[in-house]
Amino acid sequence: MLTDRYELTMYSSFVEDGSVDDHSVFEAFARRLPPGRRYGLLAGLGRLIPLIADFGFDEDEIGYLLQVGAITPKAADRLADFRFSGDLTAYPEGEIYVPGSPVLTAEGPLGECLLLETLVLSVLNHDTAVASAAARMVTAAGDRPIIEMGSRRTHEMSAIAATRAAYLAGFGSTSNLAGGHLYDIPTVGTVAHAFILSHESERAAFASQVAALGVGTTLLVDTYDIEQGIRTAVEVAGSGLGAIRIDSGDLDIESRRARALLDELGATGTRIVVTSDLDEYVITALGAAPIDGFGVGTRVVTGSGHPTAGMVYKLVAVADRPGADAPLRPVAKKASGKGSAGGRKTAYRRGDGSEGFTLDGTVPPDARPLQVPVIRGGEIVHNPALDEIRGYARAVVEALPASARDVADGTPFTTATEED
Amino acid sequence: MLTDRYELTMYSSFVEDGSVDDHSVFEAFARRLPPGRRYGLLAGLGRLIPLIADFGFDEDEIGYLLQVGAITPKAADRLADFRFSGDLTAYPEGEIYVPGSPVLTAEGPLGECLLLETLVLSVLNHDTAVASAAARMVTAAGDRPIIEMGSRRTHEMSAIAATRAAYLAGFGSTSNLAGGHLYDIPTVGTVAHAFILSHESERAAFASQVAALGVGTTLLVDTYDIEQGIRTAVEVAGSGLGAIRIDSGDLDIESRRARALLDELGATGTRIVVTSDLDEYVITALGAAPIDGFGVGTRVVTGSGHPTAGMVYKLVAVADRPGADAPLRPVAKKASGKGSAGGRKTAYRRGDGSEGFTLDGTVPPDARPLQVPVIRGGEIVHNPALDEIRGYARAVVEALPASARDVADGTPFTTATEED
Repeated sequence: MLTDRYELTMYSSFVEDGSVDDHSVFEAFARRLPPGRRYGLLAGLGRLIPLIADFGFDEDEIGYLLQVGAITPKAADRLADFRFSGDLTAYPEGEIYVPGSPVLTAEGPLGECLLLETLVLSVLNHDTAVASAAARMVTAAGDRPIIEMGSRRTHEMSAIAATRAAYLAGFGSTSNLAGGHLYDIPTVGTVAHAFILSHESERAAFASQVAALGVGTTLLVDTYDIEQGIRTAVEVAGSGLGAIRIDSGDLDIESRRARALLDELGATGTRIVVTSDLDEYVITALGAAPIDGFGVGTRVVTGSGHPTAGMVYKLVAVADRPGADAPLRPVAKKASGKGSAGGRKTAYRRGDGSEGFTLDGTVPPDARPLQVPVIRGGEIVHNPALDEIRGYARAVVEALPASARDVADGTPFTTATEED
Repeated sequence: MLTDRYELTMYSSFVEDGSVDDHSVFEAFARRLPPGRRYGLLAGLGRLIPLIADFGFDEDEIGYLLQVGAITPKAADRLADFRFSGDLTAYPEGEIYVPGSPVLTAEGPLGECLLLETLVLSVLNHDTAVASAAARMVTAAGDRPIIEMGSRRTHEMSAIAATRAAYLAGFGSTSNLAGGHLYDIPTVGTVAHAFILSHESERAAFASQVAALGVGTTLLVDTYDIEQGIRTAVEVAGSGLGAIRIDSGDLDIESRRARALLDELGATGTRIVVTSDLDEYVITALGAAPIDGFGVGTRVVTGSGHPTAGMVYKLVAVADRPGADAPLRPVAKKASGKGSAGGRKTAYRRGDGSEGFTLDGTVPPDARPLQVPVIRGGEIVHNPALDEIRGYARAVVEALPASARDVADGTPFTTATEED
């Protein structure tokens, strides 16, 4: 039922006019990237695959659809044992994409492929928006780890998916326990200002925290006065204190002052973690500051200004009868500003990172194919572990030309175009 | 487990130092509104209340928390039968808020109130962001209905919550079937371009749709050529055609042309529905166009540029022992740029719409109190139906000064401040 009503009304029409099983090809792609972006990082496939495998309608749902007139009785009969029986091909999760990249292709009976639209787009648009922003923050941070801590700024279920997307794009850990548990992602977090404020003094709060969590913990030093907070922290925990966190003020200035003071107090190994409205731009600006780790919240879970990836899912070819051997007719909307290329695309990447596609299923000998089989005849055939996806994403982004990885606003470094 | 690790580490410290049951007060509020906004519309409470009532940790989750070191064994013992036993007070869902409005107050044992932070903020920040944007679109549309159709642009579960938030802010219907079913919201939707493209001709597609759905349906006329599409639509369905939908081009020009042509063809009762990247600004610009309904997708589910409401949840008062009669000590962070007002606030609205609060529990005689009891001693005491909330929101927004309802960018029309 994670779908839009128009898909069911179309499905009903297809059932009634006999075309519901005609062979078809749909593609998901982005017409453009968010303004300023040079590339996007595809994410969501690992969440999408099981959702497609489980996609269907129970008796209660079919009753509802009939009652509100979204489906005909004949369509209801078919929906009762709906199961996606077709093929799904996609760019691997963690691959980069550009305008026109056919990141996901569904092929099979028209009615089945059609009904996946909302599910495919919801998952890919959300997770890709987060991963694309996260990848830029990771580039900005260099070898300094980033904690995803945006759960409080987004829907409680989006938060869990965002944790996964940020991690696969290179974040090191998350504050989100449900996400950490579900996806086996390292979790971190110590205290909020409420903890300090609830105690009679900052010193009492630090003492309580060190007693419960040990001197390796991270003490939050900016509740009252940062300098005094650092002095108290080192007095309470000793020079072996794990880390301090600063969550306000000019982080460049405050981190330099904090480093100097920590060093003066002998806490030369104590790390400095900063949080507070960080994003790829702020992290870049903090490049020279003595900061050992960043915590990013709002801006990563909301895609750093672009909370949806803008992908669409379009019919690109259809046959007049069922079966994979039926001759496909390329189709495309012609309307103003929203034209798209018809035909099933086979995509590849050249050595310089640029992308192209053919309509005849071939890949040039000097290029690597970008699509992998994900579902074949309804069976899942691709399900890499999250750490494998994370490694893949790192390798793909690192292989990009330096100009493509630049965090400054720019234009897409390439566009997926048809081979001449 | 919909929570952040730092809440559990704080909880553990409170268990270890004996303060976990000390009486406390936390408030959720927004320090500021998104740039340009004159007010915000609170949403999410109806989703939040049952989530708080069910909030807890099962054996598997407690095992995980122990394993990753997020809690101490003593904290684990207490978490096993965690249940929020305190009080929750809030602005009713559908009420407007401004910077500083104490929209939700949790009062009870420190450890219990603390653990609700992430859940409270995830739900309120998401749903309020959507409702606040939706309310502006409803104002812009006047008496013309708006369909929420953004499911494909946001996380699949956010989509369901967004449907609810947009509806309570005044949208008339949704494309999202799961949301329609769950919340009893009218659903609409007919076909996408894929439907037209999958047929041999636009005429065949329209004929199939009318056969399945009747002449009262909405035909999508912009796949190839809008003028020809409208002519074909009326030829196929007759002048009793319910509606046409235009999803591309200059909607002001196209809707005027379409109205003239429909009237010329005798289809004077056929409605014109437009979609395509609409938001409150575009809808305002289309104020004089002969449009009968709008469909809004991306921009409503992503909060029209502001996907999170920016609310925070802060400890504002704490006692040194358990019990509602324990003397509370107001607390507030002092750090730069993030200061907040300590003490439990009682909020009210004056006749001119402006807001104030006191710290002594009183409300001036000429003002109406804004907070209602929601949970008392762990029991839900407030749970209005969605249509009641929708009516409340409409009344509250309509009672605002015209300058506050203006869709043009502005500044908050008032700020919640302490009574002099």
